[in-house]
Amino acid sequence: MTDLEIAKKTEMKHISIIANKLGLESDEIEMYGKYKAKIPLSKIDITKSKKSNLILVTAISPTPAGEGKTTMSIGLSEGLNQLGKQSVVVLREPSLGPVFGIKGGATGGGYSQVVPMEDINLHFTGDFGAIEKAHNLLSAIIDNNIQSKTNSLGIDPRTVAWKRVMDMNDRSLRNIIIGLGGTGSGVPRETGFDITAASEIMAILCLSDDLGDLKKRLGNIFIGYTHERTPVYARDLKVEGAMAALLKDAVKPNLVQTLEGNPAIIHGGPFANIAQGTNSVIATRMGMTLGEYTVTEAGFGADLGAEKFLDIKCQSAGLTPKAVVITTTIRALKYHGGMDLKSLTEPNVTALTKGLPNLEKHLENIKQFGLTPVIAINRFMTDHDDEIAIIKDFAKRNNIRVALAEVWEKGGKGALELAQHVVDIVEEVSSNFKPLYSWDLDVKSKIEMIATKIYGADGVEYSGLANKNLKTITNLGLDHLPVCIAKTQKSLSDNPALLGRPKGFIITIREIEIAAGAGFLVPISGDMMRMPGLPAHPASENINIDNEGNITGLF
Amino acid sequence: MTDLEIAKKTEMKHISIIANKLGLESDEIEMYGKYKAKIPLSKIDITKSKKSNLILVTAISPTPAGEGKTTMSIGLSEGLNQLGKQSVVVLREPSLGPVFGIKGGATGGGYSQVVPMEDINLHFTGDFGAIEKAHNLLSAIIDNNIQSKTNSLGIDPRTVAWKRVMDMNDRSLRNIIIGLGGTGSGVPRETGFDITAASEIMAILCLSDDLGDLKKRLGNIFIGYTHERTPVYARDLKVEGAMAALLKDAVKPNLVQTLEGNPAIIHGGPFANIAQGTNSVIATRMGMTLGEYTVTEAGFGADLGAEKFLDIKCQSAGLTPKAVVITTTIRALKYHGGMDLKSLTEPNVTALTKGLPNLEKHLENIKQFGLTPVIAINRFMTDHDDEIAIIKDFAKRNNIRVALAEVWEKGGKGALELAQHVVDIVEEVSSNFKPLYSWDLDVKSKIEMIATKIYGADGVEYSGLANKNLKTITNLGLDHLPVCIAKTQKSLSDNPALLGRPKGFIITIREIEIAAGAGFLVPISGDMMRMPGLPAHPASENINIDNEGNITGLF
Repeated sequence: MTDLEIAKKTEMKHISIIANKLGLESDEIEMYGKYKAKIPLSKIDITKSKKSNLILVTAISPTPAGEGKTTMSIGLSEGLNQLGKQSVVVLREPSLGPVFGIKGGATGGGYSQVVPMEDINLHFTGDFGAIEKAHNLLSAIIDNNIQSKTNSLGIDPRTVAWKRVMDMNDRSLRNIIIGLGGTGSGVPRETGFDITAASEIMAILCLSDDLGDLKKRLGNIFIGYTHERTPVYARDLKVEGAMAALLKDAVKPNLVQTLEGNPAIIHGGPFANIAQGTNSVIATRMGMTLGEYTVTEAGFGADLGAEKFLDIKCQSAGLTPKAVVITTTIRALKYHGGMDLKSLTEPNVTALTKGLPNLEKHLENIKQFGLTPVIAINRFMTDHDDEIAIIKDFAKRNNIRVALAEVWEKGGKGALELAQHVVDIVEEVSSNFKPLYSWDLDVKSKIEMIATKIYGADGVEYSGLANKNLKTITNLGLDHLPVCIAKTQKSLSDNPALLGRPKGFIITIREIEIAAGAGFLVPISGDMMRMPGLPAHPASENINIDNEGNITGLF
Repeated sequence: MTDLEIAKKTEMKHISIIANKLGLESDEIEMYGKYKAKIPLSKIDITKSKKSNLILVTAISPTPAGEGKTTMSIGLSEGLNQLGKQSVVVLREPSLGPVFGIKGGATGGGYSQVVPMEDINLHFTGDFGAIEKAHNLLSAIIDNNIQSKTNSLGIDPRTVAWKRVMDMNDRSLRNIIIGLGGTGSGVPRETGFDITAASEIMAILCLSDDLGDLKKRLGNIFIGYTHERTPVYARDLKVEGAMAALLKDAVKPNLVQTLEGNPAIIHGGPFANIAQGTNSVIATRMGMTLGEYTVTEAGFGADLGAEKFLDIKCQSAGLTPKAVVITTTIRALKYHGGMDLKSLTEPNVTALTKGLPNLEKHLENIKQFGLTPVIAINRFMTDHDDEIAIIKDFAKRNNIRVALAEVWEKGGKGALELAQHVVDIVEEVSSNFKPLYSWDLDVKSKIEMIATKIYGADGVEYSGLANKNLKTITNLGLDHLPVCIAKTQKSLSDNPALLGRPKGFIITIREIEIAAGAGFLVPISGDMMRMPGLPAHPASENINIDNEGNITGLF
């Protein structure tokens, strides 16, 4: 059965029943149909939230074989509920663009899914659409100001770094020229579209404490310069109020359910390379207010999502995780060990052993934060017992908890061992969480700390442009912001070809972008794709809907 | 008090109470929060709907002074309910773009409003966002096919007429070049963005009977030609299933309430110049299934919205209106009589009398369809009694019902006289509705019939391009489609400067566009703006939201 078929076979509970499980009356939530709801921000209770046990699910360096963090997070939360712990899984919202490309949805898989999967994967409750509109309103206002004679800030069009966004895989919009057609239709200039998940507004929404904080951050967005080289911010265009108004519902976290009828909160979906890559602070706090355990995930491998979760989000919001799950698969480790993608189903203990150092480095990294990791082996049917034994043996030698998790096949029942490990860590191990670096350090020190300690690099090199950017950052008084390094997810290094645990490499910072609204700097190493394309045969060719509204071909 | 202040002062009823008024149980609707809901298509009952009395609200040729069709429609429905007739008002959804420009919202005014006005004017239930995504998915798939080597239809990029859309007033996107940046980022070509309301998908959604019909129409969208001059339709790209899936909720009509707690259905918002300019067939049928009276409006003046409503929508969906309300204001008639916009508050019976022929022509036009009009004078505080007397005298001489409607100030109570006229027409006058033309006529005859009989032109001239387009239409076998003439709303002629009732003019058809999916042809006279711009000081500068989510500055 496909994921969609499994999802549709499950009878969903009315969302008011799910809300009741969290102690919310049905008139306290805002229903979107029978199976989705928004939870008002007033339900967040910071004091209460601090008593919840926050569990982060991350992974080894991603490979084309897939690791299954979302599926693992959902399965773990089901497992915790089966152990009698009230657990809420808090996830990111899927982006619409990839649904029509190759990737398909992002709502888990097999018997560890959140539902209604068609709705969550399509427009859901409209959050991405609202973020897109808020972003593009600012874009329109910028070009309108450039066009205007009577209300001009004197913006130099060549300095405008703010693009437009669309939640679509549309490579033709990457590089465009706008404002053609004569004096009545704008000032011609180069620009482009990013996918909505890459919008700074998405990053802002996910780091904001509340509507007031959101509006302040929106006003802080750095646009570019005037002809006199004065920096221009969104607040100079008096647009942050209208942008915040557009986000009035998007800022509220969404409640849905897992296949086993447990609560799931899904909210926000920032990129994990150029942004912080986790769900919203608001959603995490809501989960922690309402649940004894809060299971959340961070995008890509632990070098990207987890590092940013711990150094940016946790520092910003005062969160302290209690345990970290490192998701891994036998297949992916064999790939890191040099095996070809096509032959990964064949047993190969040599390749597996060769791939283990990737896992080892991610485990070390988690320990650097004073946290206790547990390895979750996301089981595939092609895994062999002697391969599983190798990982278990590795874990034993390194004194790390490990669990075989059959979440895809069995849901929460397949995660009982993992859930028990997590409970044991929470109840027996005292958490000594400390971020890797203080935001007060200078920018280069922050970058170098991550590069050397987390990526395992020998050092960092900066391009001329990056050094120029550093001066700009100092001039704008933004040195105190944390760094959100944009790096390939495929390798611990900045070279996608270097699998396993690369050593003896240098990280090259090509440029440093300013996300003054979100409140971080983005040092960029390598090429970052912010607007994907579609394959020759896009997934849209197989998606259909019948007259009764039943969708097929989503996976 | 502003409209927003009046709207917020009113205590709204829970949407389930509004649904109950229509005989719907609360679990039969899909709630979007407490005050909005979607009604499933299964609730439409065609047989039952035919018993409802359909009332069309239209207007004289629009002027900058404003006529207030939406306010009048809402007030009339309130008045009918006060008379004990169960009435549902069925309206178009506001476009988001103009909310940040000059126009403000489109949810009525004063004491004749639909609420919650902030929600309806912002993202509402996401319909515009879904239409935008369905449109832009097709755009992305077209450019992906042009880029693709292995799955190419051989589309000639220079023939692609399908643009992209965004619900934003953004003039810089009118004319753009996409696909720059090298071989990996598409094939460079000229294109642009229209505002979402101008999307053919919007027109399609509003003419579709159900999901199956919607999907078929989506597949029929004409894209352009191959290099061998073979026509290419959306169905050739196998994308109509995915597009329909994106519209699965947008196709359901939305239920809200009026200030007096009566039901209002709001759904779809196509342009009234380049498209049919009325709410969806589905919404109208839903209103007619659930209400004894169904009050609806059509965009711009009776020459545009009403003509298209009667010739395209009514013929397509088999609807028969029972009465037509022509909304007029003293101010607008004085403007048509040559008065300056700034002095319209001054009494001027000469200008008023000089402006009356505009009203006269619209009344004649409604009678040409075999329908009975009633004049609704939308009262303003600056109207003088002797001016009102002139219109009443004019109506008496022409044997036409007239009512002074104080809907802005008094809500339904201000529309009792109008409502009684409407009831009288429904109960006493037999409707002899017949469309102006048969779709079977050739294209030029259809255009000429509208130009001479409705606009009052002496004839029609066609540009070389229009004649070339006519040949294409014949070659594609699309002569049988109705014509949706794109003309300025400011005049009965195609010259915006000719106010009142112009005579002795020729309509020039510059080109004829094909909306094969929507199922009509668009002969274009004059310049049609499909992507508005923002003013020097956009309304967004005054829009704000506080920490509790209260919005100000929307009007």
